[in-house]
Amino acid sequence: MEHEKRQIVKVINDIDELFTLVDISLNRNISFHHHLRNGDYVINYVLNKYLKEKVQGINLFPSAIFPSYTSILELIKNKQINNITTNYLNGPVAEYISNNGLEGKLTMQTHGGRARSIIEGKNKIDIAFIAAPYVNSYGDSVGYLGKNKCGSLGYSIPDSVHAKIKVLVTDNLVDLDIESPEIDGSNIDYILLVDEIGDRQGIVSGTTEVTKNPIGVKIAKNTSLLLHELGAIKHGFSFQSGAGGVSLRVTKDVRDIMIKENIKASFFSGGITKYHVDMLEEGLVEKLYDVQCFDLEAIESLSRNKMHIPISASRYANPTDESQIIKDLDIVILGATEIDYNFNVNVTTDSHQTLIGGSGGHSDTASESKICVIVSPLIKGRIPVIKERVTTITTLGKNIDCLVTERGIAINPLRKDLIKKLKNSKLKIVTIEELSRIAYKFTNIPQDIVKHDKIIGEVEDRTFEIIDNIYQK
Amino acid sequence: MEHEKRQIVKVINDIDELFTLVDISLNRNISFHHHLRNGDYVINYVLNKYLKEKVQGINLFPSAIFPSYTSILELIKNKQINNITTNYLNGPVAEYISNNGLEGKLTMQTHGGRARSIIEGKNKIDIAFIAAPYVNSYGDSVGYLGKNKCGSLGYSIPDSVHAKIKVLVTDNLVDLDIESPEIDGSNIDYILLVDEIGDRQGIVSGTTEVTKNPIGVKIAKNTSLLLHELGAIKHGFSFQSGAGGVSLRVTKDVRDIMIKENIKASFFSGGITKYHVDMLEEGLVEKLYDVQCFDLEAIESLSRNKMHIPISASRYANPTDESQIIKDLDIVILGATEIDYNFNVNVTTDSHQTLIGGSGGHSDTASESKICVIVSPLIKGRIPVIKERVTTITTLGKNIDCLVTERGIAINPLRKDLIKKLKNSKLKIVTIEELSRIAYKFTNIPQDIVKHDKIIGEVEDRTFEIIDNIYQK
Repeated sequence: MEHEKRQIVKVINDIDELFTLVDISLNRNISFHHHLRNGDYVINYVLNKYLKEKVQGINLFPSAIFPSYTSILELIKNKQINNITTNYLNGPVAEYISNNGLEGKLTMQTHGGRARSIIEGKNKIDIAFIAAPYVNSYGDSVGYLGKNKCGSLGYSIPDSVHAKIKVLVTDNLVDLDIESPEIDGSNIDYILLVDEIGDRQGIVSGTTEVTKNPIGVKIAKNTSLLLHELGAIKHGFSFQSGAGGVSLRVTKDVRDIMIKENIKASFFSGGITKYHVDMLEEGLVEKLYDVQCFDLEAIESLSRNKMHIPISASRYANPTDESQIIKDLDIVILGATEIDYNFNVNVTTDSHQTLIGGSGGHSDTASESKICVIVSPLIKGRIPVIKERVTTITTLGKNIDCLVTERGIAINPLRKDLIKKLKNSKLKIVTIEELSRIAYKFTNIPQDIVKHDKIIGEVEDRTFEIIDNIYQK
Repeated sequence: MEHEKRQIVKVINDIDELFTLVDISLNRNISFHHHLRNGDYVINYVLNKYLKEKVQGINLFPSAIFPSYTSILELIKNKQINNITTNYLNGPVAEYISNNGLEGKLTMQTHGGRARSIIEGKNKIDIAFIAAPYVNSYGDSVGYLGKNKCGSLGYSIPDSVHAKIKVLVTDNLVDLDIESPEIDGSNIDYILLVDEIGDRQGIVSGTTEVTKNPIGVKIAKNTSLLLHELGAIKHGFSFQSGAGGVSLRVTKDVRDIMIKENIKASFFSGGITKYHVDMLEEGLVEKLYDVQCFDLEAIESLSRNKMHIPISASRYANPTDESQIIKDLDIVILGATEIDYNFNVNVTTDSHQTLIGGSGGHSDTASESKICVIVSPLIKGRIPVIKERVTTITTLGKNIDCLVTERGIAINPLRKDLIKKLKNSKLKIVTIEELSRIAYKFTNIPQDIVKHDKIIGEVEDRTFEIIDNIYQK
């Protein structure tokens, strides 16, 4: 609580000035975060300069790539980018890489694995460009204030500490103390002032709602009943669910059980929505550990509620971080593009090998949680979700415990303890092969898709193990 | 936001064990905080051991002394205590010292001055015994959680960093992370477990209410009108008022003006009550900087509201702390036992030289604030508040700007700017001598009290200047 003499951080007024101060050609490993999502202006602003200056041999470390990050596509087409290491990508960049590969390779990490790699020096970042919605002259920053607020800055924290050169990019430099800053200004080298770091509409999509689709409702109901039968919804339990409509419906059903049985949870973690905030305010959960805000209500709560705590990606999910939050996670609800007989899950590519996402925290939370539940319709767009072998392994089957569909539940045979607990269950518990056969009754057996054999990248687990290759389409 | 490997702090189960680990005879400068107020059990628990062991030559540095701290009285009577350095004292210890003095001397500091002295090594503390309501095994601690929660631990923070040996005394050791701890466990040497650190009834008096006394109401109304005429209640202003009934009534009247004129304040500082919390929650003020909670509502808010911020005594009021909050304070409302023609204020002794209090943050906030208003009835218990010369100077007249009574307002002649602004005021603005004459019409001129000439202590301002002596009664 005591304050030392603070250093004022040098403010620069455009990217050209930065290029006079830093030898860009010697610092070609650069990183960004994706907290401004599809509304981010910073990535294109910075990379347009790299385009203009024709900088070669760039290695890019964005925490994720969204459709609007078009400057990345141009840099790839110009062959200015060598490698990309990220946790998630979709849109034109993803499609282009799927079709053409990179000069070097694509490495898909997890949120926790990225943090670990940066901290342990595996990802060597020269310059971190950190979009920051609210910054003071000491370089302290939070993401939950300012006109272009985005909530937690969790994914950028390792970069802000461990990159060789750290640049905060902001449109909002204030002359005020910042309490408990997410980014500690003592690490920051430059503050780069811009007109706008993003577009509010794109930052918060606001479309995250509980599903009303009857299949989604059925899956969610099956999931909450399963968790309840397993005795997992009990005093002090911890829980994570994403922002998907089915996940949120599970959250709602779990909430109903908690109210009925007077149960209070210890924490929710990960990406936070208004539904999680409501449960905090209702006293149903003690704390929210927030690595990413999905809506304005979450951002607002983060600015106000002391029990709504922004956390770094390392604290969230780095397996070598002693304070890792998800090591204490009881339940996580996750999705799947594909799942196979060994319970391997794919959320990285579609069945045609096109990149459509990536792990994010999928593999992290599956690895650490006591119970990991995959929720998915058995059939999606006439294609069964269950495969003999997934196209790309995002999360190893050994870390997946249950698959819940609208037509039955499969438990990973490795989890004999869960299977035993469910021996007398009234839920429809079947093998994953049986679930697969049920699907085939509706879809027939899909034809195998020929896998091309040119490797363009790899999936790296948080353990640093390469768990699968990514192939050109 | 990243966490290093943390050290577990050694836990000891009674004070006897501590005496086997630390050579008490070499560490006789000891400190306590007073956040548990009259409900504190820690001071007597620890000092009873010093009594039993007949430790001699103790120098005591409690942030304040309350009536229940009877072990101090016994140590003084046994001549085991040499010097006492504190910010406030009342009750039996105060009375005894007034009548008998100490072996050494009594030094009355301010809250900011105490923090400064500890940080700058002027108060050399060997062992800090810090009552802590909520502690984890790393030694991190907050005051606003736990069965014996007391709110902000502000006064103890400098001790927790700069004492040679730091001992947390707690009845509540938890196995949980603590977000933004007030006390950073990396500084802590021992955790001393006890059954109870205090008595809830004594910790929170709960008697702090807005005055309904018509004289108090009149003084408060005059004060808010004065501040309004001075243009001090304006967008972004900052404000401090204590927990006295008249101060709180001023706060209420200021609130009414703010609502009427749609004005929002930037911060309130100091000791926080439910009235300040209400205004935070109504959106009338942006932040509360809390060095001390006066009621349960304040403690509850501190545990919940991110804009209600616990601060250390140094950050509150240390003039050499760069982040000092009160350097930005616009208005402070303070009380007075006596005030004299030079606007010197006494809140340390009564007119008979009996110790009844001390500066606390009085002199600190008077020195730093743009406008310092003393509120007091003109006559208290048939005695005029205005003297030719106060019995003891707590706060120098040069730092006091206005005296508001129910029968008129006096402005310090040094504040020509304020006098000019009030030239056409409809308020009754008179000289302090004139106010004194008005009082004498009701009380006659009181007889001078003979000042005894044995010096038993001194009043030390936050500048380290000795501004007055304290005499034996």
